[in-house]
Amino acid sequence: MIKQLLTMAAAMTLAGSVQATALPQQAYLNLDTAQKLASAALTQCATDGYNVSVSVVDASGITRVQIRADNAGPHTLESSRKKAYTSASMGRPTADFADLIKKMPEVAGLRDMDPNILILGGGLPIKVAGQKIGGIGVGGAPGGHLDQACAQAAIDKVLSQK
Amino acid sequence: MIKQLLTMAAAMTLAGSVQATALPQQAYLNLDTAQKLASAALTQCATDGYNVSVSVVDASGITRVQIRADNAGPHTLESSRKKAYTSASMGRPTADFADLIKKMPEVAGLRDMDPNILILGGGLPIKVAGQKIGGIGVGGAPGGHLDQACAQAAIDKVLSQK
Amino acid sequence: MIKQLLTMAAAMTLAGSVQATALPQQAYLNLDTAQKLASAALTQCATDGYNVSVSVVDASGITRVQIRADNAGPHTLESSRKKAYTSASMGRPTADFADLIKKMPEVAGLRDMDPNILILGGGLPIKVAGQKIGGIGVGGAPGGHLDQACAQAAIDKVLSQK
Amino acid sequence: MIKQLLTMAAAMTLAGSVQATALPQQAYLNLDTAQKLASAALTQCATDGYNVSVSVVDASGITRVQIRADNAGPHTLESSRKKAYTSASMGRPTADFADLIKKMPEVAGLRDMDPNILILGGGLPIKVAGQKIGGIGVGGAPGGHLDQACAQAAIDKVLSQK
Amino acid sequence: MIKQLLTMAAAMTLAGSVQATALPQQAYLNLDTAQKLASAALTQCATDGYNVSVSVVDASGITRVQIRADNAGPHTLESSRKKAYTSASMGRPTADFADLIKKMPEVAGLRDMDPNILILGGGLPIKVAGQKIGGIGVGGAPGGHLDQACAQAAIDKVLSQK
Amino acid sequence: MIKQLLTMAAAMTLAGSVQATALPQQAYLNLDTAQKLASAALTQCATDGYNVSVSVVDASGITRVQIRADNAGPHTLESSRKKAYTSASMGRPTADFADLIKKMPEVAGLRDMDPNILILGGGLPIKVAGQKIGGIGVGGAPGGHLDQACAQAAIDKVLSQK
Amino acid sequence: MIKQLLTMAAAMTLAGSVQATALPQQAYLNLDTAQKLASAALTQCATDGYNVSVSVVDASGITRVQIRADNAGPHTLESSRKKAYTSASMGRPTADFADLIKKMPEVAGLRDMDPNILILGGGLPIKVAGQKIGGIGVGGAPGGHLDQACAQAAIDKVLSQK
Amino acid sequence: MIKQLLTMAAAMTLAGSVQATALPQQAYLNLDTAQKLASAALTQCATDGYNVSVSVVDASGITRVQIRADNAGPHTLESSRKKAYTSASMGRPTADFADLIKKMPEVAGLRDMDPNILILGGGLPIKVAGQKIGGIGVGGAPGGHLDQACAQAAIDKVLSQK
Repeated sequence: MIKQLLTMAAAMTLAGSVQATALPQQAYLNLDTAQKLASAALTQCATDGYNVSVSVVDASGITRVQIRADNAGPHTLESSRKKAYTSASMGRPTADFADLIKKMPEVAGLRDMDPNILILGGGLPIKVAGQKIGGIGVGGAPGGHLDQACAQAAIDKVLSQK
Repeated sequence: MIKQLLTMAAAMTLAGSVQATALPQQAYLNLDTAQKLASAALTQCATDGYNVSVSVVDASGITRVQIRADNAGPHTLESSRKKAYTSASMGRPTADFADLIKKMPEVAGLRDMDPNILILGGGLPIKVAGQKIGGIGVGGAPGGHLDQACAQAAIDKVLSQK
Repeated sequence: MIKQLLTMAAAMTLAGSVQATALPQQAYLNLDTAQKLASAALTQCATDGYNVSVSVVDASGITRVQIRADNAGPHTLESSRKKAYTSASMGRPTADFADLIKKMPEVAGLRDMDPNILILGGGLPIKVAGQKIGGIGVGGAPGGHLDQACAQAAIDKVLSQK
Repeated sequence: MIKQLLTMAAAMTLAGSVQATALPQQAYLNLDTAQKLASAALTQCATDGYNVSVSVVDASGITRVQIRADNAGPHTLESSRKKAYTSASMGRPTADFADLIKKMPEVAGLRDMDPNILILGGGLPIKVAGQKIGGIGVGGAPGGHLDQACAQAAIDKVLSQK
Repeated sequence: MIKQLLTMAAAMTLAGSVQATALPQQAYLNLDTAQKLASAALTQCATDGYNVSVSVVDASGITRVQIRADNAGPHTLESSRKKAYTSASMGRPTADFADLIKKMPEVAGLRDMDPNILILGGGLPIKVAGQKIGGIGVGGAPGGHLDQACAQAAIDKVLSQK
Repeated sequence: MIKQLLTMAAAMTLAGSVQATALPQQAYLNLDTAQKLASAALTQCATDGYNVSVSVVDASGITRVQIRADNAGPHTLESSRKKAYTSASMGRPTADFADLIKKMPEVAGLRDMDPNILILGGGLPIKVAGQKIGGIGVGGAPGGHLDQACAQAAIDKVLSQK
Repeated sequence: MIKQLLTMAAAMTLAGSVQATALPQQAYLNLDTAQKLASAALTQCATDGYNVSVSVVDASGITRVQIRADNAGPHTLESSRKKAYTSASMGRPTADFADLIKKMPEVAGLRDMDPNILILGGGLPIKVAGQKIGGIGVGGAPGGHLDQACAQAAIDKVLSQK
Repeated sequence: MIKQLLTMAAAMTLAGSVQATALPQQAYLNLDTAQKLASAALTQCATDGYNVSVSVVDASGITRVQIRADNAGPHTLESSRKKAYTSASMGRPTADFADLIKKMPEVAGLRDMDPNILILGGGLPIKVAGQKIGGIGVGGAPGGHLDQACAQAAIDKVLSQK
């Protein structure tokens, strides 16, 4: 019944859809690729002995996939998501910005730019042919470089096969 | 100096960018089109005698443009943005869902799905060639149908010229 | 020492202040008037036998004064502030919108436009010579019309003396 | 129909509008000027090779204009808005406070004063004839001084023409 | 070492403590009484066959005790706390306001006054000698009247013994 | 190096781990099962022609898996997660509570119990041998009953194979 | 009419008010004293040449009075309120904790304890006869010590007269 | 009546409960143990002369018990809860991470991983037979090591008796 109501409504509000011409196009991170990336990172961390969460987001920083290993702490959901968001939005590994703040304390405010930002190792941008299409973040290993290694392994495995 | 540091860092973290093949493509709402839409809606409402805010968001619901007329209340920023988000994410005019809840009170929970959702007339999806590429929301006129009229006028003017 | 540092800094960043010409002018709600309004409303409610909070905000919805009577519940701080915000931003008594939603349930979404909005009697816009300069909200009396009566008494007393 | 209902309601609630006399006046940042400032800053950054967001807020810190360039990360919306808010509310370039915290770590709490505050280069107050009327913030360039340069260029171009 | 530092600091900042005279006094809900109330309510609900959370707050709505039974859903923490807050701040059973909104839909905005408010049966004010000293809220039973019965049983048992 | 530091730290803080005896045991939703459930629900909805998000949470309402189909709106992430949370915490299909509020408007406050609650069809509890171990939520189909059908199909397929 | 309904309701729910005996008593900060404190602090800062906001809270950290001077930035509302809350809850000048973090960086987490905490000079506890009854916070002067001086002047003036 | 409605509804939605086989089992922190831990920690701190709040959470970081001593500041509720959450989720004393950030400033972002995280001494994980089953946090003593001592005393007393 909802469907019928909405169909009727749709008939009255067609104006939003217009035959337009040339809007620009861009590649996007589809779910299939995102799932492969998340699984590969989780598997790598499990192999390394760490229970982690993995998040994969698109170029807008919106979640595509999020998975949490048995025994990974609840905070790893948000830490991995924020790392993915930060890398996707800023276009660099999150570890770069952590190092930058250490060297230049006057940019510590980078941590406060947006509630989704997390300046802590473990996030990598996902780029294809030089275009930023998303980000992957890992949380739960005892050190950001260990989280990042799992993210890197996933990118190496999945994107090089494309 | 920041630039130099980041350039060095980039040299060490190239792995995120891989020669990939076929990711799918999609059209997106560029800033130029978004600005034309926002200006046209604001102008229409000014002509109609209303001080409003207008928000235009992309298909992910992320703001492209937001403008607030002199004398438009501060709440119109969020009301217009949420209307734009709701239409972009749900693919229909926000007024459709307001009517739907009136007829079927068991779906009143639609209002609570996400903090960005606003079920109130004045938001329209932006579609090109049948594909949803964003949303436009207007707030501040004394009635959602008046807000929506400005949004519709903007779509008619800008997208039909493409 | 902070002062000295900032003075030095100011010398280097003067560019923000430019000899400009004609920007438009508008009246604003000064603190003295706002305090008189808040005190008058609190006094009226005390006379009526109610322990309330009173908030007065400017045209941007930003608080000028907030006071809470002994024995007024903590929630009255936010309820009075939101009523003041809502009236200041929408330009009408909050009770009008509560009645409107009752008559037209399809506009129930008005309640969700912004986290500062409260559609409940007890808020009035503050207008001078037809220009909206702020809002006053009262919370804590057992009924919105009782809250509103205190707000109205304050406006009658303070603004008619000007 | 909403309009009719509200008109009736208005007839019953006139008391909020009183013939007042002398409230103080102040200049305010109108939309036209705000749009020119935002466009000029975005254009300057594009010329410099950076995809940024630009926000312009009024003296109350409320957004007048917000625009996001193609390929600017989603976090730049909030980072630019917060920079504009911070400069508008505190009356100085955001970079001044970043430097201050570096020199005096006991004032690091400045970062936590309000959720809208961002102590990071890229925000400038907008002043006219010595009066603070708003703020402009830029986010997305690889360094706060680069963001600030775009904001400064906009102020130089737009306000010196007034 | 922290203690030493603070002791030194305290010596320099004594001015906040002044020999004052007559500030008014009021009774307050001490922890011992609060714990007895919470335990009694949880026990009653367990006897009735329900796994619940119980919250007890003081007159300012600040938590004194919160306990969650095995198998009580996580949402019962917030639902019980908000019921306790609402009763403590508004001075009545939460069920009264739920009934009031049913009869007078124009006061539905009561639900939005403050993020701590919950208009749903299961909260009772705690009063001693006519003075409001706190609130108790129960969540998790299949019906607000069942939650309220446990809260009432606790008040009957604990406060009548005083 | 982090690992070394933490290992040293661990040696000094062993006291938290004690040889305890009989704490109660309970079954929990492992990641493998959660992923199968999420995939099955997404597949069913794709077969039915709907682009949806699917969330699976554990008995504490914490996310195990979240996936979003290509072209599913961004709001479906939160709507599916909240539906899963609500069913996991309250132990019933979310549609039951939507129907309940329709029949008994005095319980409309159920919608406000906790920010994770969503009273809208599309969420089902996950139970094994009568014990509640989590919840699954689906969002994006044009009607809650359609969302729920995908969740039900996933439970039927995955849990009956166990 | 609301009053009548509530009166009827009250008759049915008397059980919350019981003849209890000995609950402990404590002094509390009444509105009259709070207003005098706020006014005195604002006046002192005006004399010193600073436009500030002043907040006075009770021992629970709940606002009693909040006032904002003409031309004080909007962020000073929250900064003054948080300073007042922090001093009231922690029982010391906020400047003490700012100094402490400078000396002992391992306690920087004090800044994150609660969203109402602000570790920045300008807040003082209000104590009477050694009992903590509230806090006062000032924001807007160019330096926390200048803010604190206004708060101290208010305490000296108002509480020594009692 | 609610119960009847829900019983009927339950009859129609049985599918969520399926005869499943082998899901893994894990020990959990029951309420009885949690209450003993909280009381023991509060008692120890009272003996030491400190008014504190104590929070005990389960392995998912969800509160089991929270108690606040007379005269403990309101901020200690959140500070103790966050310490408990942090230890439960990260599996180590919170003090370890405070020390870690002091030594390695590039991991300061740990503070921002999740809004429930607090990197400040006073939280300990609760482990039984090597398995993490929750966390305990104490707030209010003048130093994190003093808070932690109370938490440790509680674990020593309660878990060694099991």
